[in-house]
Amino acid sequence: MRNKSPLRSDIAWSNANAIGVHGYDLCNDLMGEVNFGDMAFLEVTGRLPDANESRLFNALLVTLVEHGIVPSTLAARMTYAGAPEAMQAAVAAGLLGLGSVFVGSTEGSAKMLAAALPKDDTQDRKLEKSLPDLAQTIVQAHRDQKKFVPGVGHPIHKPVDPRTLRLFAIAKQTGFHGRYVELMQCVSDAASAAYGKSLPINATGAIGALCCEMGLSWKVSSGLGVMARAVGLVGHILEEAVQPMAMELWHRTEDEATEHSRGKLRSKGV
Amino acid sequence: MRNKSPLRSDIAWSNANAIGVHGYDLCNDLMGEVNFGDMAFLEVTGRLPDANESRLFNALLVTLVEHGIVPSTLAARMTYAGAPEAMQAAVAAGLLGLGSVFVGSTEGSAKMLAAALPKDDTQDRKLEKSLPDLAQTIVQAHRDQKKFVPGVGHPIHKPVDPRTLRLFAIAKQTGFHGRYVELMQCVSDAASAAYGKSLPINATGAIGALCCEMGLSWKVSSGLGVMARAVGLVGHILEEAVQPMAMELWHRTEDEATEHSRGKLRSKGV
Amino acid sequence: MRNKSPLRSDIAWSNANAIGVHGYDLCNDLMGEVNFGDMAFLEVTGRLPDANESRLFNALLVTLVEHGIVPSTLAARMTYAGAPEAMQAAVAAGLLGLGSVFVGSTEGSAKMLAAALPKDDTQDRKLEKSLPDLAQTIVQAHRDQKKFVPGVGHPIHKPVDPRTLRLFAIAKQTGFHGRYVELMQCVSDAASAAYGKSLPINATGAIGALCCEMGLSWKVSSGLGVMARAVGLVGHILEEAVQPMAMELWHRTEDEATEHSRGKLRSKGV
Amino acid sequence: MRNKSPLRSDIAWSNANAIGVHGYDLCNDLMGEVNFGDMAFLEVTGRLPDANESRLFNALLVTLVEHGIVPSTLAARMTYAGAPEAMQAAVAAGLLGLGSVFVGSTEGSAKMLAAALPKDDTQDRKLEKSLPDLAQTIVQAHRDQKKFVPGVGHPIHKPVDPRTLRLFAIAKQTGFHGRYVELMQCVSDAASAAYGKSLPINATGAIGALCCEMGLSWKVSSGLGVMARAVGLVGHILEEAVQPMAMELWHRTEDEATEHSRGKLRSKGV
Repeated sequence: MRNKSPLRSDIAWSNANAIGVHGYDLCNDLMGEVNFGDMAFLEVTGRLPDANESRLFNALLVTLVEHGIVPSTLAARMTYAGAPEAMQAAVAAGLLGLGSVFVGSTEGSAKMLAAALPKDDTQDRKLEKSLPDLAQTIVQAHRDQKKFVPGVGHPIHKPVDPRTLRLFAIAKQTGFHGRYVELMQCVSDAASAAYGKSLPINATGAIGALCCEMGLSWKVSSGLGVMARAVGLVGHILEEAVQPMAMELWHRTEDEATEHSRGKLRSKGV
Repeated sequence: MRNKSPLRSDIAWSNANAIGVHGYDLCNDLMGEVNFGDMAFLEVTGRLPDANESRLFNALLVTLVEHGIVPSTLAARMTYAGAPEAMQAAVAAGLLGLGSVFVGSTEGSAKMLAAALPKDDTQDRKLEKSLPDLAQTIVQAHRDQKKFVPGVGHPIHKPVDPRTLRLFAIAKQTGFHGRYVELMQCVSDAASAAYGKSLPINATGAIGALCCEMGLSWKVSSGLGVMARAVGLVGHILEEAVQPMAMELWHRTEDEATEHSRGKLRSKGV
Repeated sequence: MRNKSPLRSDIAWSNANAIGVHGYDLCNDLMGEVNFGDMAFLEVTGRLPDANESRLFNALLVTLVEHGIVPSTLAARMTYAGAPEAMQAAVAAGLLGLGSVFVGSTEGSAKMLAAALPKDDTQDRKLEKSLPDLAQTIVQAHRDQKKFVPGVGHPIHKPVDPRTLRLFAIAKQTGFHGRYVELMQCVSDAASAAYGKSLPINATGAIGALCCEMGLSWKVSSGLGVMARAVGLVGHILEEAVQPMAMELWHRTEDEATEHSRGKLRSKGV
Repeated sequence: MRNKSPLRSDIAWSNANAIGVHGYDLCNDLMGEVNFGDMAFLEVTGRLPDANESRLFNALLVTLVEHGIVPSTLAARMTYAGAPEAMQAAVAAGLLGLGSVFVGSTEGSAKMLAAALPKDDTQDRKLEKSLPDLAQTIVQAHRDQKKFVPGVGHPIHKPVDPRTLRLFAIAKQTGFHGRYVELMQCVSDAASAAYGKSLPINATGAIGALCCEMGLSWKVSSGLGVMARAVGLVGHILEEAVQPMAMELWHRTEDEATEHSRGKLRSKGV
């Protein structure tokens, strides 16, 4: 006979008159009192942010909302074309492409930095190894395993990613520009030297570093991308509803991709 | 030969130095300047909100983020248990259940109110039909088609939904308590009379009415639920990662649901 | 205090030595004994098919597997491009677009026919209303509600859908060419007359009619499309892995769709 | 200016009179001629199977269809409870949990065996290293990296997995019991010795080995699980529609999981 373990969730409860979310009274403490980004902070940390945390955390989310026409927005638009009655399904389809290729590097940067620099080492005391040496080790380890260094380089935003500059400026204003940001910069320098080309910190690298500065786990960092892109995907579906491109794109693609074979069958018996 | 139609999106562009989102400079106008809810408003309307719009719109989103343990959070947790490497897939699974049963009523209320009260009729001028008469007609039409009136009644929040009270209070403070809210109240009264039981405006009814007040289409109203619940689902997955319930729930359910049949096979030839 | 209802599933059980599926011994009665289509029949009806049912049911599924480059295969390919580590997510994304626009008409035809012709009326005895009269009523009802008649007409397969001819031929060979097929033909005739153009029975109409002939509910008919397309989507993802089109399609689309706006920002204060 | 690459798909085409799938005439070569499993074989290999391939491939799929009440079927049922209008969304939600925990080991076994034994080494000629030695190396490598050996051991099916016995018997009958199956058996023996407990080949290990025997890539092996489970998920949703458990499970879980906190709010200012 299996022993039952208890089921327990500490996130929310409701009764006839009230709803509690992480111990706050939803109606009186949260609705009309905090913004959507602060509510997201509450969901991922279990507490409300202070003013500096709120500004930086909202900025991280705002950075991630919109990426224009990319594979995930196209997947959402294609899905909407077939099932316009179900917006949630189109958003879900768009989210499903946020995997290792596009959004994974936020998580990758956060993991890399947190592993290299345990939380205690972010204080004033002397590190055993300097940040440039740590960065050197990190980059070498990635090269040895033939892996990309996460969070550096961008196909379009060269020589610097303007989002990184802005995020680090906000981090300075809010007191979150510390050793993780410095280490990320050293990683970018070491990677640029090792690969012989400019590999500046991109937005996912900046966000990974700032999640570390705020004490957020790498799991939270991958959640930020999902939350933010859900907002952006709704925007794309609303545009698709009034200014569609999915059907045209389908017909063009089918015409071009199958023209070489149309009407051709293998001979019998093959 | 098919004629090609052009493909066009007006949401975003990027070049080496900058990213434009609905005509705003992402780095300088949005990051660090607007909160996540304002960014969502920009995505669904194409412009930034003023202070009153910002307060009410953020409140609508905050209302919708968290609903505790419900089928969609359980679907997300079950999915995470099988694919912990893919948070986006667990969030997507949770979103997929936001269909006609649970979230559809926001959209339903917004549609119902917008159809009954064209935008021109929300101004001061006299209506052809009084709001109580309009509400009477609406309720009767739903009864005739044996459909539920959307946006009224709640299994737990009785005799009033505390979220509705709070949202309407914020709407008064921000100048969005107008004829759609009044009509929704009349619908609630008419439905309560018709069905002989108290059917107060629930949160989805309140949000539907306030979307109308803000001039947002019913499609936007269903997008709000999707965006907000994506945030809440991330919260549940983060809890599942450290305080899991999916596996226990699976084993309990399998044990109970299949106990009657275990070991039983049909006789041969049947 | 809420009363608990029992949880019960009659589909499957397992113990150390055996697995039961709908009362069959998976290892000895099913594996190596029945084909994948028969297993699907077992899943949706709770019993194995006879030889005629097996032939027709497998044919229905085979018909639905592959549709070439369509929005759902493009959504799957776009998703795979972003998350190649998760084939299940790419298939899921492709399935999500099987909504009201593309696959809904199978379900629609099955519902329409089953509602018009209760099962008892499919026997020899005289109908109260002739099949052409029934069809006339059906078509008129759709016109009155400004709805398309499901299951008739096709943009490419004109003047007849070759899949329909073949399915009805197999139905004759297997004893499933009965009154539902005849009624569907009458609906096609009536619709063609009413709309003044040739509206032959398409594949979804044929499948809807044959589901009725086999005694399968309309819910089953929509399940057939989902099962079959999952198979086809795997095929497309395997091709995308070795002969990709998603990234090229993304870049082309982004270039064309955003060219008009690149670099443009609204003036300050707007 | 970016150079355009061509878009090309070799899977299917259609014109007014015919549909080609991998060079076969859908209506005349496939519908009514091949079963659903053979069609799946065509989708993943580009050709139809011979009789032995057909029997074994269908058996692999039949094995994977049904797993009873498991997290993925519960996710599908939870999703259906919220969106009963969209069966495709419920199936998609169920597929999303087929990740590293439950279905990944088929792919893992296939990869492991194919890497250890290049195709040329499956012929009669002498191997450089004996199969037991190869297995020893494989198991040691997994232990060194603290990874589970894929494809061996099962929580319920002890001391042998009955599906494995059956699959290997069918493999013998069809001529697919070769060196990959032998190597998988050696891996099971080596793992059992190394971990000091019985670790028999489970169904995913058997399927991985048989995919190698059939010359199917590991990507195909993960596709098999997705296709087969889509069929099983439709079965569960059809049962949920008439004999539901999702709502009851929700209420029970919510009651138990939140009872400790109901009504509790943090004190002001905390």
